[in-house]
Amino acid sequence: MTLTDPSQTLAALIRCPSVTPEDGGALSTLAGMLAELGFASETVTFSHEGTPDVQNLYARLGSDGPHLMFAGHTDVVPVGVRGAWTHDPFAAVIADGEIHGRGAVDMKGGIACFVSALARLIARRGAPEGSVSLLITGDEEGPSINGTEKLLAWAAARGERWDAAVVGEPTNPDQMGDMIKIGRRGSLSGELTVEGVQGHVAYPHLADNPLPGLVELVDALIDPPLDAGNDRFPPSNLEVTSIDTGNAAANVIPARATAKFNVRFNDTWTAESLATELRARLERGAGRTRLRPGRGPVRYRVGFESRSAASFLTRDDALIDTLSAAVNAVTGRTPALSTTGGTSDARFIKDYCPVVEFGLVGKTMHMVDERAALADLESLTVIYETFLERWFAARVQAAGTR
Amino acid sequence: MTLTDPSQTLAALIRCPSVTPEDGGALSTLAGMLAELGFASETVTFSHEGTPDVQNLYARLGSDGPHLMFAGHTDVVPVGVRGAWTHDPFAAVIADGEIHGRGAVDMKGGIACFVSALARLIARRGAPEGSVSLLITGDEEGPSINGTEKLLAWAAARGERWDAAVVGEPTNPDQMGDMIKIGRRGSLSGELTVEGVQGHVAYPHLADNPLPGLVELVDALIDPPLDAGNDRFPPSNLEVTSIDTGNAAANVIPARATAKFNVRFNDTWTAESLATELRARLERGAGRTRLRPGRGPVRYRVGFESRSAASFLTRDDALIDTLSAAVNAVTGRTPALSTTGGTSDARFIKDYCPVVEFGLVGKTMHMVDERAALADLESLTVIYETFLERWFAARVQAAGTR
Repeated sequence: MTLTDPSQTLAALIRCPSVTPEDGGALSTLAGMLAELGFASETVTFSHEGTPDVQNLYARLGSDGPHLMFAGHTDVVPVGVRGAWTHDPFAAVIADGEIHGRGAVDMKGGIACFVSALARLIARRGAPEGSVSLLITGDEEGPSINGTEKLLAWAAARGERWDAAVVGEPTNPDQMGDMIKIGRRGSLSGELTVEGVQGHVAYPHLADNPLPGLVELVDALIDPPLDAGNDRFPPSNLEVTSIDTGNAAANVIPARATAKFNVRFNDTWTAESLATELRARLERGAGRTRLRPGRGPVRYRVGFESRSAASFLTRDDALIDTLSAAVNAVTGRTPALSTTGGTSDARFIKDYCPVVEFGLVGKTMHMVDERAALADLESLTVIYETFLERWFAARVQAAGTR
Repeated sequence: MTLTDPSQTLAALIRCPSVTPEDGGALSTLAGMLAELGFASETVTFSHEGTPDVQNLYARLGSDGPHLMFAGHTDVVPVGVRGAWTHDPFAAVIADGEIHGRGAVDMKGGIACFVSALARLIARRGAPEGSVSLLITGDEEGPSINGTEKLLAWAAARGERWDAAVVGEPTNPDQMGDMIKIGRRGSLSGELTVEGVQGHVAYPHLADNPLPGLVELVDALIDPPLDAGNDRFPPSNLEVTSIDTGNAAANVIPARATAKFNVRFNDTWTAESLATELRARLERGAGRTRLRPGRGPVRYRVGFESRSAASFLTRDDALIDTLSAAVNAVTGRTPALSTTGGTSDARFIKDYCPVVEFGLVGKTMHMVDERAALADLESLTVIYETFLERWFAARVQAAGTR
């Protein structure tokens, strides 16, 4: 294998069938490549009752600062209907200038390009003046309990400190150079139950249908919008993900009904302030009687998940500018600095050092026929190489002028 | 057994464990009593694919007009938690002036009182001048497919014609003399499905959550009220009986959601005019965008049950007045002439002759420790006897003056 060729490093990783929580040999394959480049690696297995054990990898090259972390995951989502794939999802078939396979863009491709970028940089100029670490989990697509969060704590407990981090998730919606992610909205889920009194539909005055009350409460949660967003974040958004009653009898008024919801919120909220706002909305909704004339306040209870994700925004302008300039130098495009999309493991890393995210084009992620253009792999490899060279140069120069 | 004692006729019926669709010997027990009174009986079994076979009884005394029908059912609802009963639900234990057992009030009690009323009338004055028929089903508490509807058609096909009918369902909410039912609201059920586009909660613009649209449609169905009722009927009432999504994933916007509803409607509507109104409300709701700004009309489909029940109102004043006067003569109370409550087999009978309903106090029906006061049984027996005597006398007199 030639490590400087990202199609080869990626092919080696795709051939490991690492559907969460299986490793499929992916981490040892990666550790082997990193060993060739001079990295020292450790594989760490984390356990949690009720979830599968998961392997993770921490590898470091160098012992001094500045210290750059590259973070990502080798686990992949299931292939879905295998027969629907044009090529075997674990064969890394190259056809029409694209390499096919589960994880090609999410995100074995990002890891492969980073390894190739390092291989090129080391071949051309030697190892960076400082340290590079790879923090790679096998539990990003799963419950994310035995992955990055624990690996960070494990490494930090051993004295590891980082100056900045790059996450190699696919961040470009359509083409290379579209988007760098510099933060993420937070996520808060809740469950709302309205209690009524069961009864016969012909005697509604003897019963208390929970559904009109639930409709009032859901209405109050949705409307008005939570905020309008700001220059760094899109508007916060609440989605009701399920309403359920489970009443099969057409002549029975049900005893209770439940709604579940999830909010993706920007930095105008914390999970706590948002929960307070939602509780206030529910209180207002509970007093409305338009859909339930003559009734008292809606009797409900609401619970919020204990493990919510806070929103964050990376404020390390040098990190962002260096990555943005590298993207521009290679693609000729100025990437949007975005905080859109779902959560990623960056939400854990932000507690240790500034973090940005840039990787391949995400269009085929999680889909049948997930694939990466060879041209994109080359582009991302050069972007990472350029970024590495410039980031270390700037940090070393800044340290020298202090 | 002394047929003139309703506690004895009722005890004999309670001891037949006739939980729908089982007969438990109830109809042959009843046929035996009626044979003693001179009735000719036939047991008819009806079948329908997918439902159990059910036995029914048609018994007639006399061959000329006028012809009065008494209708009811010997089947009972399940006992529920048997251990929760104070007395064996099929033992007909008498304690503290009450007879205990499943079906005591709904409605073996009504049948027993009618049999005892006939026995007393015949002993005192001989058989009525005309005919009395009992039309008794074993499928009222079940699907009601192999019961009264088919038995009426079967009897009518044999040339049976009736001038009036009394249904012996428990009609009194609190005490004997409260209420005669002279009609019923209709019943129409429907199912509403909103189609959305599944997606990730973090990318709501790529998905289309069906739940806000469903909330708009449910709101439009409920509000404003369908009507205010009139002097003979309470307001029509719509209950949403279930909203279901079945989406377990907190980060997924569901693809579709369903609501079920049932309307009990008065005589200002037919099932058709009501369905038209509900479709119009859904169309209005589908255009609302307050809870789903920037979206097009809600994509939904609605279906109504093919087997809805129409509302009806009995307009035979002589029938109503005779029954009402008998109730007043025995209880000293003037019964309300009501159209409230659920559907009953009267909805089938009304297509053949005027029909009224009067029976015991319904408070314990379908409950654990269902029971009837012996005083109520005596009261109902005298009411039925008084009604029989007066109704036949009036009909015979009217025929004589023609």
